[in-house]
Amino acid sequence: MIKHVSLAVVKRLPRYYRNLLHLRKQGFLKVSSGKLAEVMDITASQVRQDFYAFGGFGQQGYGYDVDKLITNIANILGIDEKHRLIIIGAGNIGRALAGYQGFAKDNFEVIALFDINVNQPDIAGVPLLSMTELDDFVNNNEVDIAVITTQSKVAADIAHKIVSLKIKNIWNFAPVDLDVDEDVVVENISMSESLYVLSYKINQYKKSKDE
Amino acid sequence: MIKHVSLAVVKRLPRYYRNLLHLRKQGFLKVSSGKLAEVMDITASQVRQDFYAFGGFGQQGYGYDVDKLITNIANILGIDEKHRLIIIGAGNIGRALAGYQGFAKDNFEVIALFDINVNQPDIAGVPLLSMTELDDFVNNNEVDIAVITTQSKVAADIAHKIVSLKIKNIWNFAPVDLDVDEDVVVENISMSESLYVLSYKINQYKKSKDE
Repeated sequence: MIKHVSLAVVKRLPRYYRNLLHLRKQGFLKVSSGKLAEVMDITASQVRQDFYAFGGFGQQGYGYDVDKLITNIANILGIDEKHRLIIIGAGNIGRALAGYQGFAKDNFEVIALFDINVNQPDIAGVPLLSMTELDDFVNNNEVDIAVITTQSKVAADIAHKIVSLKIKNIWNFAPVDLDVDEDVVVENISMSESLYVLSYKINQYKKSKDE
Repeated sequence: MIKHVSLAVVKRLPRYYRNLLHLRKQGFLKVSSGKLAEVMDITASQVRQDFYAFGGFGQQGYGYDVDKLITNIANILGIDEKHRLIIIGAGNIGRALAGYQGFAKDNFEVIALFDINVNQPDIAGVPLLSMTELDDFVNNNEVDIAVITTQSKVAADIAHKIVSLKIKNIWNFAPVDLDVDEDVVVENISMSESLYVLSYKINQYKKSKDE
C-alpha cells in the first residue's frame, strides 16, 4: 500500500501529526490541504503530494478526515504500538529523556536508565541501574530501543554491546557515526550538528546583509 | 565564492568537520576524497561534489589539505566567530545545554540561563536568572542566539519576547513551529520528531521482514 517514500516526506510526518492533533483539539473534524499547508507553512500541492505518497488518505476534494489522518499517520510512524526504551548514560541528556513525560502519549516507555555511576538522584518512575546489570536486564525484559546518551568516546563500544545483546534499534545522541550491522536501525540526533546549521544560517544571513 | 548550496550539503558539513578533526588528531595532514568518503559512509563522488559546491578547497588530485579544510569549513559554518547564547527554560534540556562543556571549543558561550523559577541548583559557571531580569540582561549584554527550552505552550510567547528584544537568532527545542518575522533565523531541533523517524524506520523494517 505504501509506495517508496523519500526521507524528506517521512520527516514531515511528525509535523503533520503534531499539527493534526492540535487541529483536532481546536475542534476540526475535516481539514483541507490548504488549511494544512497554512499551518505547516508549505504549499497545498506539497500536502497533496505527500499524502498521495502514503496512499491517499482519501476524499481530498471534501477535505481530509482529521481522525483518520491521525490514525493513519500514527500507524505509518509506528507509534500506535508500544516501544520499550532503555537509556544508556545518566548524564543531563539521559536524565532529561528519562524524566520526559511526553513519551507516554506516543507509546514510548522508558523502562530503565543505565550508568556506571548509580550514586545519583533517582528519576521519577525509572530505575537507575548499573552497567553491570545491563546483560541481565536485557535478557529478562523486552527492550525495543536503546538510547545512547553517553560521551562520544564510549558510544561505539556501547553500540556494539547493545547489538550483541540483540537490541536492533538505536537512538543515538552521541556525535559519532556508529558502525553497526545493516540490520540495526539507527537514528542519530546531534545537538552540535543542529547548532552548526544554525550558525551557518546566521553566517549566510550576515553575508547577504553585507553584500 | 560560495554558490547556492542545498541544505542537504550544509547538513553534511558538521559531519565533515567532526571527522576531519578526528583525522587530524590521528595525524593526517592530507586526505583523499576516498578516505573521507569511507569515514563519512558516502561516495567519493559525493565528497567531491560537496566540496565543489563550496568553491573547491583545492588540489583534489593530491588529496585535500586537512588543516585548510577544517579552517574553511569552520569559516563556512561561522564557528570561527564567537556566539553568545542565552537559554530560556532551566528544565532538564536547558540545564543539559548550559552545562555542556563542548560548546566552548566551537566558540559558543552560554552566558545566562533564564527561568521563572530560580530556586534551583546552579549550573557551573552559568548564572541562573529570573525571567523578570531578561529585558535588562539583553539590553546590557551582547546576545547572539536565544535557545528556547521551555514547554511548548509558552514557546511562541517566548519567541515573540526574544524578537522584541532584537535577538535575531533562535535555536528552538520546543516541538512547535514558531511564527516569527522572516529576518529571524530559526533552527528547530525536535527530539520527539527524531524519535518518530526512528519509530518509522523500525516499522518499515518490520514490514519488510513480514513480506
